[in-house]
Amino acid sequence: MKVYRYKKEDEYTYALGATVVMEYLLNNPSLVQGVIFHPDFTSIETIKHIEEICTAKGIELDTQAKPFNIVSSKENCFCMAIIRKVNETILDGNHVVLVNPSNAGNLGTIIRSCIGFGVEDIAIILPAVDLFDPKTIRASMGAKAKIRIELFENFQEYEKRFHKNNMYPFMLDGSKKLHETKIEKPFSLILGNEATGLAKEFAVVGQPVRIDQSDKIDSLNLPIATSIGLFYSTTMN
Amino acid sequence: MKVYRYKKEDEYTYALGATVVMEYLLNNPSLVQGVIFHPDFTSIETIKHIEEICTAKGIELDTQAKPFNIVSSKENCFCMAIIRKVNETILDGNHVVLVNPSNAGNLGTIIRSCIGFGVEDIAIILPAVDLFDPKTIRASMGAKAKIRIELFENFQEYEKRFHKNNMYPFMLDGSKKLHETKIEKPFSLILGNEATGLAKEFAVVGQPVRIDQSDKIDSLNLPIATSIGLFYSTTMN
Repeated sequence: MKVYRYKKEDEYTYALGATVVMEYLLNNPSLVQGVIFHPDFTSIETIKHIEEICTAKGIELDTQAKPFNIVSSKENCFCMAIIRKVNETILDGNHVVLVNPSNAGNLGTIIRSCIGFGVEDIAIILPAVDLFDPKTIRASMGAKAKIRIELFENFQEYEKRFHKNNMYPFMLDGSKKLHETKIEKPFSLILGNEATGLAKEFAVVGQPVRIDQSDKIDSLNLPIATSIGLFYSTTMN
Repeated sequence: MKVYRYKKEDEYTYALGATVVMEYLLNNPSLVQGVIFHPDFTSIETIKHIEEICTAKGIELDTQAKPFNIVSSKENCFCMAIIRKVNETILDGNHVVLVNPSNAGNLGTIIRSCIGFGVEDIAIILPAVDLFDPKTIRASMGAKAKIRIELFENFQEYEKRFHKNNMYPFMLDGSKKLHETKIEKPFSLILGNEATGLAKEFAVVGQPVRIDQSDKIDSLNLPIATSIGLFYSTTMN
């Protein structure tokens, strides 16, 4: 198997680390083109388990050191999978809508929280960080294999298709405090870019909410604001 | 001014980036030993503001490129401050207690959330990541300058001094769901290491709580679990 330094336009991406590889094998095996072990990988149990699944599903297996130098810059990583990229379509229901997210690690963390709180559809409004970046997939700890994510050229395109959803833009000057707001289902929790937040035009697309916080910080970080929104909307409503 | 590659045993650490430097100058100027601009730093307004504060407080200023290569590996950073490390003592009140946190970026993000929710005292149970690591300070976005953090050799030492606090260990098998628990003040939200969580002995130090989550993920990430705990304890109680 031959691997290349990851580029956004490639048809394939990489799942790095045995945990993440295993999530793909269990949840989305049809996307796995092949699995590569590092010659120094010594977790016999894990190797055996992965080999069994690969054999059963007809997935190619290989042992080589070089691919790890090419794909994974510095991390301690002894197992990887080559994953076919597919465009997904989100379903009706509760959504997280990320407007122009710019950081791969943050996106991965948000994916993990979404799955944790049972929201399995994410809309991303472009431009945005590459959701297939191996860093995104690794930061999601494999949760990327269990979620649907759809890209939209602009917010209007999303809004048109999901006009039945109750929209809650998260804004620092949102007119209601999150914890005093009844979140009606199906909901769309809408969060802006890490540095700039949501443009003020978003105040009219639904009920703007703010997370009550001290003015001693500029804002909470994006995965944290998103996760608090998810916790509140799914367990306190 | 001479700077060195940061080491844990040094008496000084570094605040990287103008935002973080400014937080120290405004909140804790007595810790700032000097400020260095990169020759390519062109934000005239910011330079002027920092110069004014440094002049008023008698803080040394310098313009050099080399320190940035030494201290800041790869980040885009045009301003830094040399910060004196001091051991702090936490006060009575609401606390976050981190048992063996191992990641500098996570610790910085938690510091930022604590300030955001008005909890200004953090106890760290050793062993733990170096809280003066420039990565911690940078990830806190300068919130490190506004918080008290005290290190404890073990949990018993903390518990003895703050036995009046209501202790809430966060455990995946905690006997009560967080959102069904009344959090009594002053509270101690206790969270374990990123990989291992809290040892089961912690179940008896107070009321163990769990954040209700899908079994499709192993756990939420540590800053997210901590921040949800903070949001719930400070705004919903």
